[in-house]
Amino acid sequence: MYSFRELTDIIENEIKHLKYPKDPRLLYEPIAYSLEEGGKRIRPVSLLMACNLFSEGIEQAKPAALAVEVFHNFTLLHDDIMDHSDLRRGKPAVHTRWNDNIAILSGDAMMIYAYRLLCSCEQQILPQLLDIFNETAIGVCEGQQFDMDFETRDEVTVDEYLNMIRLKTSVLLAGALKIGAVCGGAQDWQTELLYKFGIVIGLAFQLQDDLFDTYGDASVFGKPIGGDILAGKKTFLLTSALKTADEPTRNEILALIHNKQIDAKVKIDSVRAIYDRLAIRQTTEAAIAEYFREAELILHHLDLPEERIVPLHELAEKLLKRKK
Amino acid sequence: MYSFRELTDIIENEIKHLKYPKDPRLLYEPIAYSLEEGGKRIRPVSLLMACNLFSEGIEQAKPAALAVEVFHNFTLLHDDIMDHSDLRRGKPAVHTRWNDNIAILSGDAMMIYAYRLLCSCEQQILPQLLDIFNETAIGVCEGQQFDMDFETRDEVTVDEYLNMIRLKTSVLLAGALKIGAVCGGAQDWQTELLYKFGIVIGLAFQLQDDLFDTYGDASVFGKPIGGDILAGKKTFLLTSALKTADEPTRNEILALIHNKQIDAKVKIDSVRAIYDRLAIRQTTEAAIAEYFREAELILHHLDLPEERIVPLHELAEKLLKRKK
Repeated sequence: MYSFRELTDIIENEIKHLKYPKDPRLLYEPIAYSLEEGGKRIRPVSLLMACNLFSEGIEQAKPAALAVEVFHNFTLLHDDIMDHSDLRRGKPAVHTRWNDNIAILSGDAMMIYAYRLLCSCEQQILPQLLDIFNETAIGVCEGQQFDMDFETRDEVTVDEYLNMIRLKTSVLLAGALKIGAVCGGAQDWQTELLYKFGIVIGLAFQLQDDLFDTYGDASVFGKPIGGDILAGKKTFLLTSALKTADEPTRNEILALIHNKQIDAKVKIDSVRAIYDRLAIRQTTEAAIAEYFREAELILHHLDLPEERIVPLHELAEKLLKRKK
Repeated sequence: MYSFRELTDIIENEIKHLKYPKDPRLLYEPIAYSLEEGGKRIRPVSLLMACNLFSEGIEQAKPAALAVEVFHNFTLLHDDIMDHSDLRRGKPAVHTRWNDNIAILSGDAMMIYAYRLLCSCEQQILPQLLDIFNETAIGVCEGQQFDMDFETRDEVTVDEYLNMIRLKTSVLLAGALKIGAVCGGAQDWQTELLYKFGIVIGLAFQLQDDLFDTYGDASVFGKPIGGDILAGKKTFLLTSALKTADEPTRNEILALIHNKQIDAKVKIDSVRAIYDRLAIRQTTEAAIAEYFREAELILHHLDLPEERIVPLHELAEKLLKRKK
């Protein structure tokens, strides 16, 4: 059985050995650049891990793992253009390092490349893998569109928010796990359980990210605290607060969020003070704990020897304890 | 056997009945919009035609034909952003009607949608179809990148230009024909011949487009004449002129192309006068005729009853005689 560390090394090594044509240079250089070390490789590692649950060998799952990682990086490339994010993992994003056109086109090529990698999987399971991959990929696009929609909307419900992050964040992790399980020869009910595991773990991960953005320790979180509040981002915290609050408090929150004159620190502190009054931190922590419990339950239902499940527990821990 | 007209109607009808999810609206509306009537449907019709060469029924090729048309429209969507083209078939391009972000993301979703359509083809031939599709798709991206590269380069050779248009224009038509042939049950040597037929027809088509842009009749061509000259576009005419010209004439051409002060009409007339001196029109017409001859020869080598070949002759005629 492979450890988390071993699987990460395998992925890193595989990525290092991917070959690209030399020309056109401006199509392929950004692809190599965006796949360089720095990513956490969570999705491809999860895919191999899921395969390894059911099969000692993981060779057959490697192309699919690479496909998922290439696809993930394609989405980052295009998302960074759309979100005007100039940095990615501490380096200039592709559209900053080169330009928007090159980022659009290299991204397109990466998506094709992802499909090409996937197509080198065993022909017998290929149609099934493609079905999962297609559903996953379109789900990620839907999630990104909902996320952009939310920016221009005044209010978003908690359920709408959860649906959005399910698509934008969870579906790819869940799809990776499901694909890995299929590669490992799992039965349908097992692949479905792993998919659900990926969904709840992904949701918990995103909720935790939301929580840290407001209540985290900047030095550990790696970003300034309060960014979501300043950007008026519809997070689990904000949507939950708007759901819980009475009419005057709702208006107070919305007025603060829309206030462009107010000092940044005052804005963050004021919104956080309302969150405190509404016990939003506790609500969020409870939701994360609930997803975590669900994840543990799903692992239990997989009905595999306890030692085989260890890496999945490790995955959940890694995702959820990564920063305080 | 289906006529060109019948196949076009079939495609138009299939596209009309494609179903999209309702939400997120801003992801799916642009897809439906970009697939609306207006396109010539050359590629999907060619695909069905190629299938029909070897099989009376064409039902099995329909999803692949749609996949190719959806992919083609995805490339237009992203190309229009990159090229800042605000109009497409007389209507606002998606990025004009909505915005760049929506055009990027809807385009991404269209590519996935294209793969999804392709994946509904018969499982037995699916790996082969995917191989052709993947190669085609990456080729189109390479062609677009070379085309963008050429904009910033001073000189491009005729061979480099031909390679670029082979990728940007021919490969998708050739891939469509090859996919159609595979769906129809053709043998490998036949699918290869059809691929080559698509390549030369595509090249001839693009060269003719280049020719009309400088020597055409504006009322028939549908665009103002001389646009390529004003934009300094590396066309077959320009690259051939730079190849044929002596040193002083080359410098004269380059000086004209780079001159931003000169009156548009004077610029067009002056460059055309040099082309006339170098007999570039004749060179281009000869190249088109040569590709056309090659195409006819390939059809002959297919070794099919003459009446079965009629639609392909019709296709070549349609592409090459569409405007004078």
